[in-house]
Amino acid sequence: MHSNQPTAHLLDQPHHDGSELFVTPGQPRLGDRIPVRIRIPAARRAAEVFLRVNRDGNPLYLPAKLDRETSFESWYVAELPVDNTRVNYRWLLTGNQRFEWLTARGCAAYDITDAGDFRITTHSPGPDWMLDTVGYQIFPDRFARSAGADTRELPSWVRPAAWDDAPASDYASINQFFGGDLDGIAEHVAYLSDLGINLVYLTPFFPSLSAHRYDATTFAGVDPLLGGDTALERLSAALHQAGIRVIGDLTTNHTGVTHEWFQTARTDPTSPERGFYYWQDELPIPLKPWLQSFSDQWGGVWPANTDEASVDYIPWLGVPSLPKLNWASAELRRRMLDGPDSVVGRYLGAPFQLDGWRIDVANMTGRYAADDFYDAVARLTRNTVDTVSSNDAMLIAEHFYDTARDMDGDGWQSIMNYSGFIRPAWTWLTRPDTDLRFLDAPTSIPRRAGTAAARAARHFASLVPWSTTARQWNMLGSHDTPRIATITGSRALTEVGAAWLFTYPGIPAFFAGDEGGATGHDGENARTTMPWNQIAAGGGSRWDGSTHAVWRSLIALRRTHKALSHGGLRWVAATDDALVYLRETATERILVALTRAACSDITLPAWLSDAPPTPLFTGHAAVAPTLTSTPTGWHLFADSPSVGIWLLN
Amino acid sequence: MHSNQPTAHLLDQPHHDGSELFVTPGQPRLGDRIPVRIRIPAARRAAEVFLRVNRDGNPLYLPAKLDRETSFESWYVAELPVDNTRVNYRWLLTGNQRFEWLTARGCAAYDITDAGDFRITTHSPGPDWMLDTVGYQIFPDRFARSAGADTRELPSWVRPAAWDDAPASDYASINQFFGGDLDGIAEHVAYLSDLGINLVYLTPFFPSLSAHRYDATTFAGVDPLLGGDTALERLSAALHQAGIRVIGDLTTNHTGVTHEWFQTARTDPTSPERGFYYWQDELPIPLKPWLQSFSDQWGGVWPANTDEASVDYIPWLGVPSLPKLNWASAELRRRMLDGPDSVVGRYLGAPFQLDGWRIDVANMTGRYAADDFYDAVARLTRNTVDTVSSNDAMLIAEHFYDTARDMDGDGWQSIMNYSGFIRPAWTWLTRPDTDLRFLDAPTSIPRRAGTAAARAARHFASLVPWSTTARQWNMLGSHDTPRIATITGSRALTEVGAAWLFTYPGIPAFFAGDEGGATGHDGENARTTMPWNQIAAGGGSRWDGSTHAVWRSLIALRRTHKALSHGGLRWVAATDDALVYLRETATERILVALTRAACSDITLPAWLSDAPPTPLFTGHAAVAPTLTSTPTGWHLFADSPSVGIWLLN
Repeated sequence: MHSNQPTAHLLDQPHHDGSELFVTPGQPRLGDRIPVRIRIPAARRAAEVFLRVNRDGNPLYLPAKLDRETSFESWYVAELPVDNTRVNYRWLLTGNQRFEWLTARGCAAYDITDAGDFRITTHSPGPDWMLDTVGYQIFPDRFARSAGADTRELPSWVRPAAWDDAPASDYASINQFFGGDLDGIAEHVAYLSDLGINLVYLTPFFPSLSAHRYDATTFAGVDPLLGGDTALERLSAALHQAGIRVIGDLTTNHTGVTHEWFQTARTDPTSPERGFYYWQDELPIPLKPWLQSFSDQWGGVWPANTDEASVDYIPWLGVPSLPKLNWASAELRRRMLDGPDSVVGRYLGAPFQLDGWRIDVANMTGRYAADDFYDAVARLTRNTVDTVSSNDAMLIAEHFYDTARDMDGDGWQSIMNYSGFIRPAWTWLTRPDTDLRFLDAPTSIPRRAGTAAARAARHFASLVPWSTTARQWNMLGSHDTPRIATITGSRALTEVGAAWLFTYPGIPAFFAGDEGGATGHDGENARTTMPWNQIAAGGGSRWDGSTHAVWRSLIALRRTHKALSHGGLRWVAATDDALVYLRETATERILVALTRAACSDITLPAWLSDAPPTPLFTGHAAVAPTLTSTPTGWHLFADSPSVGIWLLN
Repeated sequence: MHSNQPTAHLLDQPHHDGSELFVTPGQPRLGDRIPVRIRIPAARRAAEVFLRVNRDGNPLYLPAKLDRETSFESWYVAELPVDNTRVNYRWLLTGNQRFEWLTARGCAAYDITDAGDFRITTHSPGPDWMLDTVGYQIFPDRFARSAGADTRELPSWVRPAAWDDAPASDYASINQFFGGDLDGIAEHVAYLSDLGINLVYLTPFFPSLSAHRYDATTFAGVDPLLGGDTALERLSAALHQAGIRVIGDLTTNHTGVTHEWFQTARTDPTSPERGFYYWQDELPIPLKPWLQSFSDQWGGVWPANTDEASVDYIPWLGVPSLPKLNWASAELRRRMLDGPDSVVGRYLGAPFQLDGWRIDVANMTGRYAADDFYDAVARLTRNTVDTVSSNDAMLIAEHFYDTARDMDGDGWQSIMNYSGFIRPAWTWLTRPDTDLRFLDAPTSIPRRAGTAAARAARHFASLVPWSTTARQWNMLGSHDTPRIATITGSRALTEVGAAWLFTYPGIPAFFAGDEGGATGHDGENARTTMPWNQIAAGGGSRWDGSTHAVWRSLIALRRTHKALSHGGLRWVAATDDALVYLRETATERILVALTRAACSDITLPAWLSDAPPTPLFTGHAAVAPTLTSTPTGWHLFADSPSVGIWLLN
């Protein structure tokens, strides 16, 4: 037992989310009246229930009517008027000295701002197939080498590594070249099919002067070191044949300093390309202190031996190799974003047929000093993606930060969910006293109670419509972070994290190798190669076959049960060491219980399930918690880190 | 003693706000580096302190340095880079398993969105004189009649009332005409000077078909029933001579159905005025359900006998007399907002010389269906206000609602602070079981603990920069609400409310008559006339001389002590029945304690004050609480509703 744990479960809270139980499915159109529902447990029955909706900038209260009632809960329904393109709404429970709001952050008995309101939008949230997607991130240099890789001449910037070498840490990794290529990936499509993923996200494939390729020298074609354009065509075709979609990775925030546009801009100040970048002599902010403060934070990203005077442009975050793009340029918009012949457009069409893009550093794109072209870039990109693909392609944004204002419009469809998933998961599952860095924070990862983790997840989820929540790109790590296995330091806790990922709303996605227990203590060191020999052998020093089996079964569970991909999310309990939630559709209810330690203090009401639940999952390192019927209800307990996934009857 | 009260005072919380103790005063410019400070009580000392700032859409962490330290607190300082026009920032306290944020909403030990971050902006928050302002709202029909009022011929819409009649309730009041005029106000400038206010806010003075005049028939001149243009000139001159500023009231959301623009628009579909309004045949949303849902809420605002087919325009909130303006029209922008000859501009210049505008229904202006011209209207209005007045005029917005996104740019300077002041004050001070309506909510005013009131006030204050907080138009009521005396039902509690108003950050403002204890149970019924005979006699059935004396002394206190107008706000305690806060500048510290009932459970640390504080205020109906030195610190108690205002030494 822990002192700070709430004794009450959360099932006595009123609940609403945007899933089919509460909001009639389908894309809202301007002028629609949509029935929306709230469920109110008997203990919290209200004399009157109202829906409050922001219409034309003003609150409108609409009475909710009792829809149905059981011994343990009441359902109310109201008609939500969708009279603006973006609508926020909340519930008011009142009567008998009570005046209580329900927003996406939970209940509040004091007046609160709209920031946590439920949201709905007439803009499309992205294709429906996103809901049924399990994503798999591949860093092309590190996944697999085809035979062709041995025949290519390596450029001078390359520092070749052997396939089983450990990736270097930090910036020393930039030139470390393992030589994976696109045909190498194509040779392993059967492995991907067997694993059960159905979307591959490729980090950049453009020519560049680094292994990560975020410093493109051109967007005109695929890096010959990866096999060139035809290799991408072959890979795309092979994946599609196996029913696997594939998306690319584009830097709209910057190019490489060697990019053809930047070279033209530098040599010809009268060229249109000059306007694609920011130049020091036109700057509203002196460069030196701007760089200095980044240097203060990052501890010397700006190389000590750089002649600052020679840098006449604005580099992104002070990294001289990455000049920042200036989206005031209409010509840049045209070349990069607008229409089927733009960079965004041409890789979505034949012959490449990508299924969408992941946009690098999206949250900073177009933002510099007094400039803010963020919305314009997002909208134009989205328009091309939608047009070229007939609304069937995906557009996700890298976003380490707060997503308010960004996600309910006609720009990005979803984000890499660092704030709403990865941070909560890490802080709950980290080893105590870790020295691993907490993403951008100047500290190590803090270890927090499950209550704090759940609250943070809910806080950030409240920023976006449910249709976006269900499409967020959730991860336990990426090519920019330590590996989850290193963060937890425990196979059992890694399984707990994986169970959270695959049973939570949003696209579960992971970095190739996580499914075999790959380790890595920072983003660069985590860019490990796939040990194909060990994989073929069922295990080895860099491959854990039992971890692979657990991930494979979680993926299968995710893809089998619609409640896990489409269902609502109702929190059942959050304590120091346990997170329990329900995923529910109209026809299926799945209970998920995760514990990071022994836990014996959770009692759930008897009405949760009439019959014994059906277990759906057996872990390897994580045990299954016990769920037993007691006179006071269902009692949940575990002796160690555990994962329970049950179908309720 | 009350069960739900926190036992700890709030002085053990780290604190920052935008006042001079924490942020170097002055208007930030792009590129500035501004020292910002945080004070951390000894009990909460942190191993490391960082400033986190959102720069170009991404968090930047800057180390804070220890600036000075006493036995009871540490001050840290960091340099805030103002590298965008709008900057949000927060503090991180870390070390030894701690990872805690301080935002404008207080401390959080879990990750939170930016919504509550501190804010700073390179846009001007409005003229400095706003900080030293005490505002007084006058509804011209109800303040005073000049001799000229008796000589005017009354139009047919008028239903004359005797000066001492009670105003009707609800919509019956629209035509009830008491005949106050602008020269009537000018005759009472000495009264206003004696009271101590230094800004008059006039509700509309344009010709119309109602006593409230929010349904203008023209913006071309002042209503002859008020004395016409020359009366406004005389009033403006008389007020200015007494050192009192004066602002007008403009409807940018709608005009009257009798407005000359609307009449032209209706009769000539080819006229430019046609584009000033929304028309049913062009609507994306069918009118009928749109009106019906308002009717559901308001219970029949839409007159039952109106022939709906005859309404071919969009009326605001379903009120047929108020056609909504369509800000897509460039010609409307030009006539109404843009430049010295526009409606906005011409009353700010000679001969009227208004000192600014209050904008009616600002939060809905320009917002309708898929249209959102809100920002454009606010910016254009602001630009004209600034240009015509050489940045010396004020622009406040009526805003019953959430102000996120609105207040840190180049639009409105501040708002009528319904959410951040009036609602918290009402919920704390209301009679229990009142049947008075809670503004737009479909319920009566809920009575809440001081903890909830303080939390709500802090929540909404966090949406705006401190420079705006210090300029918010705070009220206890307006011409649209019941009177505070009726809400509290208690002279003592009304004094507590007034003390809160006049000691709180923001412009204290009140509706003429409040200072004499005027009553009224809804917005219309509250539009009482000033009983000048009783005022001259020092009291009467409609005038309480002692209330007047209390308000007058609170106004004097406000205008004497810079800590009350310019100082920071640090919460000291919030319990069910007590609110205690500090207002502090570099040279003055004032402690304010308000209780709504007997209260004996608040102990404050000894370091709060070395010597006995100096009382600054004596109430009439409200007693002074007792503040005594005890072995554990300062002990605060009261036997009944009380107001304590002390200068700390």
